[in-house]
Amino acid sequence: MTSPVTQSDIRALAFDVFGTVVDFRSTIIDEGRGIEARTGVRLDWPELADRWRGRYAPSMARVMSGEMPWTVIDDLHRTALDDVLAELGGEALSTAERDAFNLVWHRLRPWPDSVPGLTALRREFTLATLSNGNVALLADMAKHAGLPWDVVLSAELVRAYKPDPRTYRMVPELLRLRPDQVMMVAAHVKDLRAAAAEGLRTAFVPRPHEHGPATVLPGPEELTGIDVVADDLTDLAARLTRP
Amino acid sequence: MTSPVTQSDIRALAFDVFGTVVDFRSTIIDEGRGIEARTGVRLDWPELADRWRGRYAPSMARVMSGEMPWTVIDDLHRTALDDVLAELGGEALSTAERDAFNLVWHRLRPWPDSVPGLTALRREFTLATLSNGNVALLADMAKHAGLPWDVVLSAELVRAYKPDPRTYRMVPELLRLRPDQVMMVAAHVKDLRAAAAEGLRTAFVPRPHEHGPATVLPGPEELTGIDVVADDLTDLAARLTRP
Repeated sequence: MTSPVTQSDIRALAFDVFGTVVDFRSTIIDEGRGIEARTGVRLDWPELADRWRGRYAPSMARVMSGEMPWTVIDDLHRTALDDVLAELGGEALSTAERDAFNLVWHRLRPWPDSVPGLTALRREFTLATLSNGNVALLADMAKHAGLPWDVVLSAELVRAYKPDPRTYRMVPELLRLRPDQVMMVAAHVKDLRAAAAEGLRTAFVPRPHEHGPATVLPGPEELTGIDVVADDLTDLAARLTRP
Repeated sequence: MTSPVTQSDIRALAFDVFGTVVDFRSTIIDEGRGIEARTGVRLDWPELADRWRGRYAPSMARVMSGEMPWTVIDDLHRTALDDVLAELGGEALSTAERDAFNLVWHRLRPWPDSVPGLTALRREFTLATLSNGNVALLADMAKHAGLPWDVVLSAELVRAYKPDPRTYRMVPELLRLRPDQVMMVAAHVKDLRAAAAEGLRTAFVPRPHEHGPATVLPGPEELTGIDVVADDLTDLAARLTRP
């Protein structure tokens, strides 16, 4: 049983980034189509986007199991890109093109509500990323997309990927807050449950286009116990900030 | 012998903060005088500011020697404040007043050129702090003073204080740059020499009022080998960015 959330309890918000703040799928598809136009390498880019993202969790799991040494997301993405191109008949793409395309994750576009929502929230709260993306990726993305973070926190800083408890504990520790003064914001229930287990508050925002037509949103029963359910980040700002 | 610095070499700037970007002495004196007006506790506030800051290096040295376990600057400051108040006859200041005053370091004022200089530099470079201040202190200060950092990097993240080499190495490592793509910016030659030893570029900005009338600026011979010597941060922006 959690006590009711009041605005005065919360001092900082920690944001999941991929899917929650930025739209990886449409950015990858659009950049892919640009590569196709430039190089003539034809591919099913939506399928590539889905498969590339699909390799994200398994590759982090190999790091966390100890099968692989600590490896940042940029490098996991690069290996996964080679694998997916091999599967989809994209072998003709040059190493230089692959290296450049891999950095699409540094250039992901925000959802339309992300920048206005974050800008409003930043007036009252300290805004942190809490992403499995590495620091360089998150810093480049913030600069590119205009995301107004106060601090860039990453799994890289504790060398453990979410949902490892060390990632969530890092936020109140570095900000010198109690865990219940920090609210995790994510479009993914698993991330929020893991944050709640470390004492953080939780806010869910649905992202109905995250995985394109294949997106499945959680049902109301899956959201039980989550402190705030908002429509998007501007709605979250309206719910958490003074009128 | 270093090769000439060209703008295209440098991708990120790492800033010393206390003294280089913010004016700790005048902020502490002004807040102290406010405390005196409110509480009636009379003190020599300039002397307090100088002694408080004077305990900074020795207290970090005790951590780095292993005499003390890892301790963040907020906590080193708090202990030093008690010591300095005892020396200067400030025993009457309450614990609550001391706790609040200790956070003056989170509210330090920027030098007049800091915000415009950083704002101009941020258009071309990734701006990072590289400070012995802890993350919460630096995040609060940035919010309070409007310092437009892209990433907040702190000695706290490697649990070692400057000039330990691990602090300087952290910047290119987390930003995935070569050391010579990072320029350390500081008002302190010792900090720049330690950064250069790890392969970083260096920029010096004099802060003639850092220690009030007692400030001693380095002579030209002490600045030999430093890549850029600027008048202040707006001048640094003029030297490093395109016209």
